[in-house]
Amino acid sequence: MARFFVEPEVLRQDVIQLGGENAQHMKVLRLKNGEEVLLCDGQGREALCVLTENGLVVKERRESASEAAVRVSVYLSFPKADKLEHVIQKATELGAAEIVTFPSARCVSRPDEKSLQKKLERWQKIAQSAAEQSGRGIIPDILVLPSFGEALKRGAQADKALLFYENEQATTLKMALSSGSYQTVSLLTGPEGGLEEAEVHEAREAGFQICTLGKRILRCETAPLCALSAVMYDAGEF
Amino acid sequence: MARFFVEPEVLRQDVIQLGGENAQHMKVLRLKNGEEVLLCDGQGREALCVLTENGLVVKERRESASEAAVRVSVYLSFPKADKLEHVIQKATELGAAEIVTFPSARCVSRPDEKSLQKKLERWQKIAQSAAEQSGRGIIPDILVLPSFGEALKRGAQADKALLFYENEQATTLKMALSSGSYQTVSLLTGPEGGLEEAEVHEAREAGFQICTLGKRILRCETAPLCALSAVMYDAGEF
Repeated sequence: MARFFVEPEVLRQDVIQLGGENAQHMKVLRLKNGEEVLLCDGQGREALCVLTENGLVVKERRESASEAAVRVSVYLSFPKADKLEHVIQKATELGAAEIVTFPSARCVSRPDEKSLQKKLERWQKIAQSAAEQSGRGIIPDILVLPSFGEALKRGAQADKALLFYENEQATTLKMALSSGSYQTVSLLTGPEGGLEEAEVHEAREAGFQICTLGKRILRCETAPLCALSAVMYDAGEF
Repeated sequence: MARFFVEPEVLRQDVIQLGGENAQHMKVLRLKNGEEVLLCDGQGREALCVLTENGLVVKERRESASEAAVRVSVYLSFPKADKLEHVIQKATELGAAEIVTFPSARCVSRPDEKSLQKKLERWQKIAQSAAEQSGRGIIPDILVLPSFGEALKRGAQADKALLFYENEQATTLKMALSSGSYQTVSLLTGPEGGLEEAEVHEAREAGFQICTLGKRILRCETAPLCALSAVMYDAGEF
């Protein structure tokens, strides 16, 4: 079934005319009268509609059933642009609630103030498109924080605040997750050059647990997706 | 520490001169005398060496400690070329023992006989490079099988032979893995257009268990990496 994200107020109408890019997209799909279409407000509500000559007629409004019970935030220190876009797309498919990016000491790439607004729009669009394709009920928020310290402060509020570090060997992700139930998780990973020891120390002080992702060194774009997949598995999503 | 893959017979020498691409790569790294280098035979054996003016002097030979105890084979029906290359790189990082690709009914892309040998060399090179970077003890084999039936026959020999299908809702990966111990796993996923119902039926007959990866639709290059991450997690790798 075709799925489109619309503004929440559109979802409250009984007969809906899609506009803008959605209208174009619907044309491309060549939908015929009688076919069903799912409209989502990107905040967890959706409406099952049927296409008629008058527009999309709402048959049923409901909560989206495709969201994970666990709320996972991906905290990724700025990697190069193509890698960040990759992580946004894949983390959205895998069910992340939000993707948060921020500078750290060894970042080789960080967007300047000027270009940031445009980039954020682009990233949010990537998330929306991946959310549509994968059947998400929400569009994950893409956030940019000004400092590593801000990321720690925000991330540490989750039930499980976990930082993955290649020099950690004792604490596995499994140990960290099995030490008590959780509904919210923050997964923090470093940029291409890794995190500095002092940063890892700072994170521990802020309330993060330091974990390993195993004996192999994962690239900066692979680590968050590996951790996210494992958390969703652990939480009973699949 | 710098790591290079060499032929098994090279690893048996006491003083080693690297040749070809390895020699070039060592030049680029500007290693100095006294620095340690790890040589691996790609089959699980490695030698810790120190650079001297006479070459690399072997200090210690040992089994590689970075391989997973569980042997996971990724069976992926031919996706488009860039996606296959992506899966080869990432599955190597994540610890796969081999990546097996084969045709299925809805493949939009399949390499022709003529170009296959060249492509296989390229894919094997991607695996080698990812194995070096991530610190693997082996280089995963890249295999091409001539038919879906051959893939089923070979894959079904594992302790857990699992196929992921978007229309399966009852059996989760967790249920499939928890029903008895395992040392070998086959993870089979479809191409861009998915697997046909008849193919899923055929796989079940051949001994595969049909599982879901959750409520969201994953792209064909995301599904195998998500499943592989979860299996490694379940097997106690991290």
